[in-house]
Amino acid sequence: MAELKGACIFGQSGGPTSVINASALGVIRTALDSPCITRVLGAAYGIKGVLNDVLYDMGLEDPAELDRLLATPASALGSCRYKLADPDKDDTDYKRILEIFKKYDVRYFFYNGGNDSMDTCNKISKYMQKVGYDCRVIGVPKTIDNDLWGTDHCPGYGSAAKYIATTCMEVYQDAHVYDSGMVCIMEIMGRHAGWLTAAAALASNYGAGPDLIYLPEVVFDMDRFLQDVEAIYKKTGNCFVAVSEGIHYADGTFVSEAKTSATDGFGHAQLGGLAARLADAVKQRMHVKVRGIELNLLQRCAAHLASQTDLTEAYRAGAAAVKAAVSGTTDRMVAFERQYQDGNYFCRINFLPLTDVANKEKKIPLEWIKADGAGLEQPFLEYALPLIQGEPEPSLEESLPRFAMLKKIRA
Amino acid sequence: MAELKGACIFGQSGGPTSVINASALGVIRTALDSPCITRVLGAAYGIKGVLNDVLYDMGLEDPAELDRLLATPASALGSCRYKLADPDKDDTDYKRILEIFKKYDVRYFFYNGGNDSMDTCNKISKYMQKVGYDCRVIGVPKTIDNDLWGTDHCPGYGSAAKYIATTCMEVYQDAHVYDSGMVCIMEIMGRHAGWLTAAAALASNYGAGPDLIYLPEVVFDMDRFLQDVEAIYKKTGNCFVAVSEGIHYADGTFVSEAKTSATDGFGHAQLGGLAARLADAVKQRMHVKVRGIELNLLQRCAAHLASQTDLTEAYRAGAAAVKAAVSGTTDRMVAFERQYQDGNYFCRINFLPLTDVANKEKKIPLEWIKADGAGLEQPFLEYALPLIQGEPEPSLEESLPRFAMLKKIRA
Repeated sequence: MAELKGACIFGQSGGPTSVINASALGVIRTALDSPCITRVLGAAYGIKGVLNDVLYDMGLEDPAELDRLLATPASALGSCRYKLADPDKDDTDYKRILEIFKKYDVRYFFYNGGNDSMDTCNKISKYMQKVGYDCRVIGVPKTIDNDLWGTDHCPGYGSAAKYIATTCMEVYQDAHVYDSGMVCIMEIMGRHAGWLTAAAALASNYGAGPDLIYLPEVVFDMDRFLQDVEAIYKKTGNCFVAVSEGIHYADGTFVSEAKTSATDGFGHAQLGGLAARLADAVKQRMHVKVRGIELNLLQRCAAHLASQTDLTEAYRAGAAAVKAAVSGTTDRMVAFERQYQDGNYFCRINFLPLTDVANKEKKIPLEWIKADGAGLEQPFLEYALPLIQGEPEPSLEESLPRFAMLKKIRA
Repeated sequence: MAELKGACIFGQSGGPTSVINASALGVIRTALDSPCITRVLGAAYGIKGVLNDVLYDMGLEDPAELDRLLATPASALGSCRYKLADPDKDDTDYKRILEIFKKYDVRYFFYNGGNDSMDTCNKISKYMQKVGYDCRVIGVPKTIDNDLWGTDHCPGYGSAAKYIATTCMEVYQDAHVYDSGMVCIMEIMGRHAGWLTAAAALASNYGAGPDLIYLPEVVFDMDRFLQDVEAIYKKTGNCFVAVSEGIHYADGTFVSEAKTSATDGFGHAQLGGLAARLADAVKQRMHVKVRGIELNLLQRCAAHLASQTDLTEAYRAGAAAVKAAVSGTTDRMVAFERQYQDGNYFCRINFLPLTDVANKEKKIPLEWIKADGAGLEQPFLEYALPLIQGEPEPSLEESLPRFAMLKKIRA
């Protein structure tokens, strides 16, 4: 493969994670060190930054400040949820992207995100091929949802899983301090795949987690749910439940969006999320103390509880993308392959065709879910536990997080 | 003061904290080491354990496991919210307590809790004096609410404040990743005093926290609130708000409990808490993306983010109670006095009469609150910052918390 010299653009896309900026650092540092890459540009708000010609010259940043990206959650360059049109129907955006690529002599494009972002990455890659513009395009995986196809797991998942398991263990202690009993319902992210909610099973494995875990992979039945909760409460005086925001009825309706005629016959939009709804349903049936907890944004930005394994892998994914591109790889996404040596987990990096990855979703294998649909089997625990291992050195000032402060100088 | 030999009872009461078990360890270790104290008994579920004669022999616990109490949130012995009757009207409970004290030759009683628990402690102390039963009674302060009278601050507050400030800083990053803007409303505990919510100002001090902070010390005005949010959103494209669960209107009605006729003309009970309500009000006025976040139980059990200063002080409070009692002190609560040496914070321990402390509430001085009622002044930051300093060594197994597992052998 011929050597290709030129600038690179790096962008962050989709929902942020605790370690997405570690991938950014992996890309930026490696690109800055690469003789082939003449200039490293960061796109403001993902592909929108390319379309709007708002690009930052990452070479002008203070290297020590860049290093702090390792401990900085959320997308330091800004993110977007922008979907590119089908280029056969509307190629406006693509022409604009090509124009910007030419303006800055961009020969490398790295895009960090989940399913939708890999679609963007794939479309740009194919368009550049079609118009014959020599540019190497690599997707860097990222999503707390862990639902990208073809990779054993996604950077961001391990840290979110660790946050969820740790928080469940702590809340379990708190929810058991009184002898008066309580039902506690914790709502966890994950619209279509239950990977995040399943992480609560890591806590249960230590006897300090949810009694019941409901995932979107299994059809939700409200009556069955209420019976399950009541049975456990009657037996133990407490019940701790973890639910995925994406649980749905047999007809596909999300439980969080279904009309709850039982509680409001007028069909008014009700405030509060799924946890509040389920808590209300339990309260109405059992007349006991119930608390709904929604982990909300906290589960995807709690960098203080990041997994070192996840952080290292996120960095490696970014670095590997640049190294591969410089060596001639294009039109691929970085993917992880799990391996074990002497029983110890390690992670190998592969490259998958973007076409195969874009827009596909990976769900939890049904054989990893308990037969009663309300818990996880041992293979899931063995899958998830290695991903949450290790504690990064904290980056603190006066015992509060010290995040990267980038200068963001326009190119 | 004559030497007094006998058993001691220790109980935990009220809402738990991240470090309440550090005070337990301070009491238990010091009592086990004291030649005057013949037996160390832990009450199951606070004073209820005394009334029900469910007492654990703490001397039979594995010392290494006891040490893990330092890293274990919530009340390891169980807690209660049990209010003793006025002894002049109904002395049933008091007679029962005296009976149990006599049964185990209890000469020391240590009770760990907040306002209501100090009332319990005070009543027991006065009753034992009245009936002439020789017993030394000391209250050990505890409350994330930080609203105990007479003490500079309370064990539990520093760790909760650190959790709140850290979480605000992380959520701030997350809430600013898109260029599309968002209003984020974070609901923090504190029914009558705003100390916890005020801790969000520590994040704002680093430019990564709420724009607006509303405390129960200031009357809440919904129109003013909506105007404030709109003004900041129009100026910056974002707005981050922290609200105390205890904010109330001029007539004293909690905002969280007021009928929201604007959103539901039928006056139905609405699901979701204050954050969801305020989010809905903002959405209706501004038609922008709004997210309500409730920190819920997480803020009082997040031992993984404990402040070492808080943890050390919580332990010292327990140890000091035992040492003082053995030396003859009784009918007192342990209190902290803030001192500075060469500009460095340190904490001195005093003993206040239980009568003076019971049932009193300490609120944030109004001069620490900004004139517009929506933020904190520098003196609050100087007050709070020393309390969140230092990171304890984590107690982990496979990168998840390893909490104390007590045998709880009945006495």
